[in-house]
Amino acid sequence: MEVNDTDVRRERCDPDRPAHPGVFLTREAGKSDHQPAGLSVDFPVSVVLPAGGTGERTGLRTPKQFCSLLGRPLISYTVQAFERVSWIQSVVVVVAEENMDLMTDVVQRFRHTKVRAVPGGSTRHRSIWNGVLALGEGEGEGAVVIVHDAVRPFVDEDLLYKIATAAKEHGAAGAIRPLVSTVIATTSEGYLDHSLERAKYRASEMPQGFTYDVISRAYQRCSESDFEFGTECLHLALQYCGTNAKLIQGPPTLWKVTYKRDLAAAESIIKDALSRSACVITGGSASGAALAGALREAVGALGTELEVVPDLRGENARCLAKEGNFILVSVGPSRPSEVEALLTELEAANRALLHPLVVIWVHMSDSDELSVSGRAAAVMDLSSAAKLRNILLYGIQLHPSKDAERWERSVSRVAELTSVLIRDRSPALVGQLLQA
Amino acid sequence: MEVNDTDVRRERCDPDRPAHPGVFLTREAGKSDHQPAGLSVDFPVSVVLPAGGTGERTGLRTPKQFCSLLGRPLISYTVQAFERVSWIQSVVVVVAEENMDLMTDVVQRFRHTKVRAVPGGSTRHRSIWNGVLALGEGEGEGAVVIVHDAVRPFVDEDLLYKIATAAKEHGAAGAIRPLVSTVIATTSEGYLDHSLERAKYRASEMPQGFTYDVISRAYQRCSESDFEFGTECLHLALQYCGTNAKLIQGPPTLWKVTYKRDLAAAESIIKDALSRSACVITGGSASGAALAGALREAVGALGTELEVVPDLRGENARCLAKEGNFILVSVGPSRPSEVEALLTELEAANRALLHPLVVIWVHMSDSDELSVSGRAAAVMDLSSAAKLRNILLYGIQLHPSKDAERWERSVSRVAELTSVLIRDRSPALVGQLLQA
Repeated sequence: MEVNDTDVRRERCDPDRPAHPGVFLTREAGKSDHQPAGLSVDFPVSVVLPAGGTGERTGLRTPKQFCSLLGRPLISYTVQAFERVSWIQSVVVVVAEENMDLMTDVVQRFRHTKVRAVPGGSTRHRSIWNGVLALGEGEGEGAVVIVHDAVRPFVDEDLLYKIATAAKEHGAAGAIRPLVSTVIATTSEGYLDHSLERAKYRASEMPQGFTYDVISRAYQRCSESDFEFGTECLHLALQYCGTNAKLIQGPPTLWKVTYKRDLAAAESIIKDALSRSACVITGGSASGAALAGALREAVGALGTELEVVPDLRGENARCLAKEGNFILVSVGPSRPSEVEALLTELEAANRALLHPLVVIWVHMSDSDELSVSGRAAAVMDLSSAAKLRNILLYGIQLHPSKDAERWERSVSRVAELTSVLIRDRSPALVGQLLQA
Repeated sequence: MEVNDTDVRRERCDPDRPAHPGVFLTREAGKSDHQPAGLSVDFPVSVVLPAGGTGERTGLRTPKQFCSLLGRPLISYTVQAFERVSWIQSVVVVVAEENMDLMTDVVQRFRHTKVRAVPGGSTRHRSIWNGVLALGEGEGEGAVVIVHDAVRPFVDEDLLYKIATAAKEHGAAGAIRPLVSTVIATTSEGYLDHSLERAKYRASEMPQGFTYDVISRAYQRCSESDFEFGTECLHLALQYCGTNAKLIQGPPTLWKVTYKRDLAAAESIIKDALSRSACVITGGSASGAALAGALREAVGALGTELEVVPDLRGENARCLAKEGNFILVSVGPSRPSEVEALLTELEAANRALLHPLVVIWVHMSDSDELSVSGRAAAVMDLSSAAKLRNILLYGIQLHPSKDAERWERSVSRVAELTSVLIRDRSPALVGQLLQA
């Protein structure tokens, strides 16, 4: 069997990336890399994020909102999606009593600033109502409250804006999606009664928005049975305030992380977003630049755009503030000090708070046993300290060749390894010196 | 930031595995590793698998049923799920004209035996009808036809049995799932009209089953408009044959691979299933056995069960027929011939047809520059040929230590690397000699 064939086919399957999930603020740079142009609202907007679920459906011991993706709990990604929106004032996360400490820890570790955690109630509606009460009337008069799920991390500013403004105008608004399956009514004996005409119905998703007035009146008026068994806030707004919510179609990335497989799907979306680009630092040598040029083409074909710079001085220092992946090319004798300097700068820039950074040290030198083994030890040494700071250091050893065909093969091997290291961000492989 | 903390948390998130998806037949051993006890039916059962979709929703150029997961197209996993069921006679895959060659290639490469490919129609119903016609009346009298989606690969025998027998008894049967979102009716202006009471409705999923008689009558009688715009076979059976389908709740793994993220989710399920166990071959030495014992514990904690054997002779040869992952422990001087022998046996057993096999050569020896470099070259050499046969060879170099703490650290590093290599099955890392 030709494995290469299928690799090529896999390739063809991967060219189109999903819409930018919008949670990847390079906070230090002050704005997201996908900022809708100048959205703002002239009324206060706050968010209530019910996160009390126990995660039964994932089959995991940890509730899914606290499951870790690349070293950070899902809930932190969701919170970040709101924090990056300048016109959102505050986020109230409603968590089960037993998870209050965990949530406080998340807020501190990832330095979330707009967030308060409050204890939840025994059902979804009671938790949301607790969150609305925690907002208080101070945030009341004329305000809009957005309700979202802790386990839908990829909500973008554009949709939030549409929901908030429609809620302000109509009293309530909600995101919808087309139905993926036919919906059927069943008889009490478990047979098909009839199927609904798919085109007339929609799936009600999150986020939803309400004026503070509508959502508090709805909860003040609704029954114990609503609190106990209800799930749909839009329904309460209609029933108790006579407000027909405006419905707005959202993107597929709104889906709810429900099963264990959804965690893999979410991680894949995050990894895609983190591996879109990388910065190659050539060190200024001609052979370093030649390698970088060849890599740019080969890695580009695998889906990561490379920016090539000789060093990170002057204007090039901008890479430190925006890139999440660095490829440092060294030529000739081993100089771990170059790597060390880069690690120090990245640490100083505090870039690895929300996502692990990747640094790949590509060393190009003649086969020379002792220096290769010294280099392997240097990579391993440097990587341990860096890993504690969420910077993942890997090494690649490249043996230059005057034979054009061998050189090309080596370059494409470096490209393949580089792509996989950047895409996978594997903590287990940190410190390895791989052979190209 | 303490990365280790979050690694531990990640750990806690992963202990419970999803239900066995049921597609992992070790065909050579003659039966699946999750065979429901002695299911069989006394009537002919065939399958129609519409696979004509263009995959628009994944945002990929290749239709999703042909996207590759671990070197094999999704459609082949789905076909395999039916082929492993002894009481299913034949599978008709209905594909778009332009994909007929691709499908024929899949059938040949992965040696599917119960499968025929036929060209599809312009809509889903026309394609299914083409498939039913291809079955022909030969498979007719008293037969049951199961209709499934090409992009739901994880259907298990137990559910197929329930659907087939219910279809035989009631004329039609279909899998259902609870609704994940509230379903709402919208006004023509895009406002909420009303929301449905979730408990009364279900999502109609696949597989569905029909007697040959019911499904052919339904298609013979239905209108052009049904052929053009309809999607639900159960609806046609009800409308044109008066048959109320029996509804059967299926597991969450029935979900339909729709978006690009679903491919990542499916791959994760497959990788979970392939990394449940591994075989360690110690070579019989005391230090090899000691390492294996320590590994069994450490790798077990990471989720892979290890079976330890001294060699693959006699009774132990059964591992060759059932395991997908092998850890070969060598002590002392490099003997690539041991690895070569294992690769040859695996190739002879033809175990890598449907899934890539993993072989990890763990070499335990004193630091000795030249032999390490020779070993690195040996791993790289052997791995190229093996990769063409879908066997992924990796090396791990372990330096023994008399210091108990260092030894423990090394073992846990081997365990971590082993787990990642087995779980990720990365083709790019093939041939690397990693340092523990």
